[in-house]
Amino acid sequence: MKMNPRCTYCLLSRVHFQSKLSTDDEDLISKTLHECLGVMNKHYHPEAVSASVATKVHRKCYEILEDNDPYAVTKKLINQASLKVLPFAREKIYEGNPDDGELFKRAVLASVIANYFDFGIMGFDASEDKFESAFMKFFEQGLDVDDTPKMLGLLEDVVYIADNCGEILFDMFVFDVIKKLGGKITLVVRGGPILTDVTMEEVREFEIDTKVDKVITTGSNAVGVLIEEAPEELLKAMKDATLIISKGMANYETLSEHNFGPIAYMLLTKCECVAEDMGLEEGFAVAKLMNFP
Amino acid sequence: MKMNPRCTYCLLSRVHFQSKLSTDDEDLISKTLHECLGVMNKHYHPEAVSASVATKVHRKCYEILEDNDPYAVTKKLINQASLKVLPFAREKIYEGNPDDGELFKRAVLASVIANYFDFGIMGFDASEDKFESAFMKFFEQGLDVDDTPKMLGLLEDVVYIADNCGEILFDMFVFDVIKKLGGKITLVVRGGPILTDVTMEEVREFEIDTKVDKVITTGSNAVGVLIEEAPEELLKAMKDATLIISKGMANYETLSEHNFGPIAYMLLTKCECVAEDMGLEEGFAVAKLMNFP
Repeated sequence: MKMNPRCTYCLLSRVHFQSKLSTDDEDLISKTLHECLGVMNKHYHPEAVSASVATKVHRKCYEILEDNDPYAVTKKLINQASLKVLPFAREKIYEGNPDDGELFKRAVLASVIANYFDFGIMGFDASEDKFESAFMKFFEQGLDVDDTPKMLGLLEDVVYIADNCGEILFDMFVFDVIKKLGGKITLVVRGGPILTDVTMEEVREFEIDTKVDKVITTGSNAVGVLIEEAPEELLKAMKDATLIISKGMANYETLSEHNFGPIAYMLLTKCECVAEDMGLEEGFAVAKLMNFP
Repeated sequence: MKMNPRCTYCLLSRVHFQSKLSTDDEDLISKTLHECLGVMNKHYHPEAVSASVATKVHRKCYEILEDNDPYAVTKKLINQASLKVLPFAREKIYEGNPDDGELFKRAVLASVIANYFDFGIMGFDASEDKFESAFMKFFEQGLDVDDTPKMLGLLEDVVYIADNCGEILFDMFVFDVIKKLGGKITLVVRGGPILTDVTMEEVREFEIDTKVDKVITTGSNAVGVLIEEAPEELLKAMKDATLIISKGMANYETLSEHNFGPIAYMLLTKCECVAEDMGLEEGFAVAKLMNFP
């Protein structure tokens, strides 16, 4: 996905947000904003990939703050809050003994809803209560784009590219269904801390590796999956997969520049630009299969 | 007022907003954002005056758009919508035959509330219905900072620095009271089109010059009052005045850098930065007298 003019102020707003998470030093915050302005000014271009510019901006932000993980505490809070909603989600997914297709659809829906559990997007302030009420609301609404019936026949060898903390705990419902149906899962997490994204640290903490066949990383702390920073084993896994599942907007922003497939984008369209780029509306719960004959 | 990190993304958001008012050409909009990013990057400094940087950014925006008044249509819409609320406001101000002090307070309150009738501040979308319901709500709440009793004794020779279109029609209630009390009014409007601010065009259209003793301008289309661009007659009038009334945030942002006084800032604290700088909270209706012994 190419950069939109909106990305400029949305990104700077996020830089400010995470700078305040990291420090109370107003001079340092101001310096950080200025340096990030400079990076954005240098790399802004209508043909630039939004998440690629975001990677450069966030790296500069972390460098100036001298903080390699401003969201360290936030990520733990999101995980804690998410853990409390999990039993409720499980109940809704398995309610009434659904068949495989319905079970898969519900698990996908739960994991898409969990894409909402993200801090730092302009105007979003999460709290535990909001998590549960938001989950209930979205679960009743269902998927706005539902390609799960087509995805169901492609689960033999899945590469699952994770997005945020919190969300990853709900992704495990999808892992359970894929395993039940006999599929193989290669989970991909970030190679280093960036925003609230899942890294090997959370994989170890929640023993997520026991739920999948293999865990690999994107090779760096890039926002999304930057192919030029991706390890060979990730590229090979994506090429060999019967289905790539890409969670969240940043993975879409980067992978939509390439032709990997079949690929299912599972996300909430939390921003107008991603929604437009996908030909959808803002606020949609999406499981959209692409590059599939 | 000095620049805050928030000003960066708020300003870029406004640049985007007004670019879309001016054109549908996506390439031109993107170029405009990029050029404005460059100007901001060049002039960003924690000691820079926010409205001074805003002036540079908006001038670049107008230059790239080749549009010297992107809000031309918007300003007319604001005026039309405001005209419809005027009779209601007049009724509320004069209700029950108030004494001079109460009458002045109500007129000031109405003109402060009208500072809300502005487009382009992040997230605000005005419509006629909202104008009237917002007016009623704020009128019942009254002023959060009310220095009108102290101002009442200073009305002999008033310099009144206007802000937005729409708002100016409500400022006339204040003019009426000052005239009734025997005061003299020098009205100051922008020297050229900027944002939704009042210029000589609206003064002529609504015959505002018949309500005051003299109308002069800020000498340029700067955001607020840039002293380095102000004509000599404005500086002299401000120096000689028994009271300067400064409407809105941009005038505060520029004039708070100087020591003119006595000066009454009449505004709604529509942004967190201005509210903080004044030691107040966001969303306050303010008539605050400063530089008064």
